[in-house]
Amino acid sequence: MSELADDIDDRRRSIGARRNPETEEAILEAAEALMAEVGISGFSIEAVAKRARAGKPTIYKWWPNKTALLLDVYHRRKPANVHMDTGSVEGDVFAFLTGVFAHWGDTGAGQVFRFVIAEAQRDAAAAASLLEYSAERRIQSGEIFQRGIERGELSADIDVGLCADMLAGFIWQRLLTGRIERDPGQLRRVARQMVRGLEASGA
Amino acid sequence: MSELADDIDDRRRSIGARRNPETEEAILEAAEALMAEVGISGFSIEAVAKRARAGKPTIYKWWPNKTALLLDVYHRRKPANVHMDTGSVEGDVFAFLTGVFAHWGDTGAGQVFRFVIAEAQRDAAAAASLLEYSAERRIQSGEIFQRGIERGELSADIDVGLCADMLAGFIWQRLLTGRIERDPGQLRRVARQMVRGLEASGA
Repeated sequence: MSELADDIDDRRRSIGARRNPETEEAILEAAEALMAEVGISGFSIEAVAKRARAGKPTIYKWWPNKTALLLDVYHRRKPANVHMDTGSVEGDVFAFLTGVFAHWGDTGAGQVFRFVIAEAQRDAAAAASLLEYSAERRIQSGEIFQRGIERGELSADIDVGLCADMLAGFIWQRLLTGRIERDPGQLRRVARQMVRGLEASGA
Repeated sequence: MSELADDIDDRRRSIGARRNPETEEAILEAAEALMAEVGISGFSIEAVAKRARAGKPTIYKWWPNKTALLLDVYHRRKPANVHMDTGSVEGDVFAFLTGVFAHWGDTGAGQVFRFVIAEAQRDAAAAASLLEYSAERRIQSGEIFQRGIERGELSADIDVGLCADMLAGFIWQRLLTGRIERDPGQLRRVARQMVRGLEASGA
């Protein structure tokens, strides 16, 4: 894990009460099992508390709302190969796209994330949790482009945050319109177009 | 309007019953006024029918669901300058981003579109309407890149649909995380990075 990501993790942990790792694990396991069994419509903090044999106040102390808990359930199963240093930006972007779409398509993770995004459009607390989460991911995937600058592969005057937004935007919009892309050829093309641009001179 | 967009319009009009232009206008006006007054939570086909003095069956004949009607209300107010031929792809992308974000930020249009996307994550009919709508927009904004190929500005082997997806993805993700971008400098940078790429050699 990078230093930046470590910093964010530390910051998150320091907000609110210190978590007991065993109880935290039990709650996350219960939340995940509940999602798998009843889906989003039956998911509630109350049902998670019952299943984890934890108090509702404990859950609310660590996760301000259902969305925050769901985002942790969603994120902890994301495979490590989503963020790989392959030695080139095109390789990293391809690995990222392949890994996220596989995670979304092969597990229930895509459905969870769709629900979280939808919930954030109508509930302010959910919106705040999603914004915090996506800001963390923005920094994490921004590292793909930051490494590229440091290697001299990318121009030093690009905006790393905008690059991360473009990458996130592509996968979000595909998920939200039910068009998860699994064709490696298409994903390589996205990576190539993003890095090399579209101009005829670059062909 | 381009031939492609005309074709889509013709196709849409030919699906289902022929619309009476005056009644259609009255329904769209009523839907728009209702949205402005009561917002999304109070919006229903029943209330639109009452206000437009139209029958509910008439509305359902032309719009299969609330989402389809909202998408028409949303789209007909989109300013024409969103799709401009400025003579360069960077110029066109900049005009598109500026126009859409202004439309979303200055009117209630952004809220309507957020609601539509959210609804599509939990309702299959809404999802179908959103998919149809976004497929049409994909062709329309793809023309920016198609024109670039025809001018010899862009490489002939780029994937126009993927370019349109990247563009849509950026604005969707910004809308859904409440980060509508109004800084022309940032929007010019998005257009530049997209067209010229990120590589150091291109700097």
